[in-house]
Amino acid sequence: MQALSELKRCQGRKIVLVPTMGYFHEGHLNLMKVGRNQGDDLVVSIYVNPMQFAPTEDFANYPRDFERDKRLAEGVGVDWIFSPEHREMYPEGYQTHVEVEGVTSNLCGISRPRFFRGVTTVCTKLFHIVKPHITIFGRKDFQQYVTIKRMVQDLNLDIEVIGMRTTREPDGLAMSSRNVYLKSEERESALSLSRSLLLAKGVYEKGERETEIILKEVREFIAGHPYVKIDYAQICDVVTMKDVSRIEGNAVLALAVWVGKTRLIDNHVFGEPLDI
Amino acid sequence: MQALSELKRCQGRKIVLVPTMGYFHEGHLNLMKVGRNQGDDLVVSIYVNPMQFAPTEDFANYPRDFERDKRLAEGVGVDWIFSPEHREMYPEGYQTHVEVEGVTSNLCGISRPRFFRGVTTVCTKLFHIVKPHITIFGRKDFQQYVTIKRMVQDLNLDIEVIGMRTTREPDGLAMSSRNVYLKSEERESALSLSRSLLLAKGVYEKGERETEIILKEVREFIAGHPYVKIDYAQICDVVTMKDVSRIEGNAVLALAVWVGKTRLIDNHVFGEPLDI
Repeated sequence: MQALSELKRCQGRKIVLVPTMGYFHEGHLNLMKVGRNQGDDLVVSIYVNPMQFAPTEDFANYPRDFERDKRLAEGVGVDWIFSPEHREMYPEGYQTHVEVEGVTSNLCGISRPRFFRGVTTVCTKLFHIVKPHITIFGRKDFQQYVTIKRMVQDLNLDIEVIGMRTTREPDGLAMSSRNVYLKSEERESALSLSRSLLLAKGVYEKGERETEIILKEVREFIAGHPYVKIDYAQICDVVTMKDVSRIEGNAVLALAVWVGKTRLIDNHVFGEPLDI
Repeated sequence: MQALSELKRCQGRKIVLVPTMGYFHEGHLNLMKVGRNQGDDLVVSIYVNPMQFAPTEDFANYPRDFERDKRLAEGVGVDWIFSPEHREMYPEGYQTHVEVEGVTSNLCGISRPRFFRGVTTVCTKLFHIVKPHITIFGRKDFQQYVTIKRMVQDLNLDIEVIGMRTTREPDGLAMSSRNVYLKSEERESALSLSRSLLLAKGVYEKGERETEIILKEVREFIAGHPYVKIDYAQICDVVTMKDVSRIEGNAVLALAVWVGKTRLIDNHVFGEPLDI
């Protein structure tokens, strides 16, 4: 992969990387379609990265279907799939990590303490292997997108990071590979995330700027559904990811909610449209 | 620098980077002379990296002389000097680091807890900025050399790391920018490091393999000099940097000794020549 990318770069071709954990849905395919138009060689990495899962999490059960992913990728014009083995990514004696501190100290950084370290480490490795000019991330994982942008800037990686809006089901549910975990009776409760974002958007547009007032409505709305347990519902600065008490400039409402045994995330940046 | 390096790479030119903190001595110049023969474009970075100094250490007083360094670099055929400002390397909001765990947990990793994190972080940044094919490190900082090799391998950096033997004064003292700190009456004591390495080499060559027996002689020899305080004297595996009780295969005798207010390091890999 490195030799191929080096060759392509020296031929003047622009390389775009879409890093994924596979099991593609429309959201992934939309990132690839954008990637297709942004460069000459479109690389998709498929790697379920053990370093970003805690022992209690769903690494073993995370859905995988390489043949289906390959067909779907080909369908949107992907040139190369990079899908390494664990023993290639973390051989015996492996001992290095990359960590972004500030922006990972809130939200998922609290619920999943090793998650971002795993993400930033594997992305650094993928960037070194694929050598892209451009990389594309979904903004459903908003904090992840901010973390990657911060890392790329701090470590002087010569890569443009593009963040793409969340792709949703017709009823508003944010697309996620983990949606396959949802039982049929949990599906309606899963909609409480996107619907609470719409609710918050409405409250904001009527002029409310106090985050505790908005968050109280959001939390009450979600908690009114069966099977749910809120992990967090917070409003944060989009650069620092720290909680804000008033919305001034850009702020993001970030949600993580357990629906049964499935942990879902979603978010809304105030002042931007919500695609429902 | 990135644009220049990208251009050179695409012209098929091989880039060599020698990362330094400046205040060049013969050791630095020897790295550059080797670099000159290894590639087409020879880049030397000069950056006294605050992240690798503890607040109690000599960051403020570390010797600097850019104009002299520039002349010396030109004299050995260096093509480019990359010498950034702190505000470019660590702008406001900076929050990312790179850490190698296992090999940094012994020796200088104990005496200087943040040192290797600072080194691996700044080297990652320099590698991303200068985009070298080859980088050259001195092996006086043997643990640093091992750490950089480990990091390059673990993070899949597409860079060859070359380690160069230590350059010494005619009397055996390992060259170091910090040697200028030594008072004239301390100079003889500073020779206790290289002389104890020669002593250990002799004991080894007579067949001794028990590290405690060799280390006892080394420590007693050094301690017999005025102004000295041993920080560490250990024999370690050259890959893991963990202490070994017997020398089997490659092992390194690593020394850190305070001579007055100057902390000096030196080392000897058993089975290899010591250039004195």
